[in-house]
Amino acid sequence: MISPATEKDGPQILDITSRIDIFGQEEVDSVKEAWEEYLAYGSPPDGYHFLVYRDGETVLGFTCYGIRYLAEGVYDLLWIAVDPDARRKGVGAALITASEEAVHEMGGRILIAETSGTTEYQSTREFYVRMGYVNEASIKDFYKPGDDLKIYTKRV
Amino acid sequence: MISPATEKDGPQILDITSRIDIFGQEEVDSVKEAWEEYLAYGSPPDGYHFLVYRDGETVLGFTCYGIRYLAEGVYDLLWIAVDPDARRKGVGAALITASEEAVHEMGGRILIAETSGTTEYQSTREFYVRMGYVNEASIKDFYKPGDDLKIYTKRV
Repeated sequence: MISPATEKDGPQILDITSRIDIFGQEEVDSVKEAWEEYLAYGSPPDGYHFLVYRDGETVLGFTCYGIRYLAEGVYDLLWIAVDPDARRKGVGAALITASEEAVHEMGGRILIAETSGTTEYQSTREFYVRMGYVNEASIKDFYKPGDDLKIYTKRV
Repeated sequence: MISPATEKDGPQILDITSRIDIFGQEEVDSVKEAWEEYLAYGSPPDGYHFLVYRDGETVLGFTCYGIRYLAEGVYDLLWIAVDPDARRKGVGAALITASEEAVHEMGGRILIAETSGTTEYQSTREFYVRMGYVNEASIKDFYKPGDDLKIYTKRV
């Protein structure tokens, strides 16, 4: 059910992104930019990787990850999103697990998920902890005053 | 003495970079890539900025900084380097101070300097602390096993 995204998944990926209520326009634009680069260049070692969770022809969620420059075997989980209508079915857990496996297979050691410290993102942070991530570092007021950066890491 | 870098500073910037003993090939390539992007696109709000410290026609050091995506007013101090033959003259302090001022003028709130936790980078870390930076976050074994990421921040 989980596989690398192909061109035809694009509209559904972008549609899901636009329906994630905690994503603002900047997040939507950023996913679109990563998707366009993925479509244009595929997944070179230093490029973006997209995985989708499909139920038949329907995309229920996706992840996007990419290697961090100047570090050995460190990948950023840049995006993970599940269709709001398909929550609580294990889609997110399956996607993040598949991403960890893919990163491991590429020689990755660490997967990093950066998120916000606000109440809006509490369930996101709880999800990472449930999946074995640790809030290894934080930067106060990073996103904006009162909105801290929380860096979650997992050794994969 | 400090001003935005212009095309003719390129060879000296790259020459200094190649003579920094703690920089490996990946660091040298990365500076070159940022420089080429700066030359090609100038400094749009989301691009790279280069400042040089000049003594007459001679470049004694440079900094490169850029905005962090998805955050408000956060800049990364991506590179700071002083000609090994021009150390202990305050060039680095002047460059980082000028960078902070420039970031502040662009509406930046936070300047982030990421560096390594190894002994080789001890004087770099001491430099940041001397300049008012705080080691706000760390990620173990980030660069490679035994080589931690140290994130220094300063409110500017």
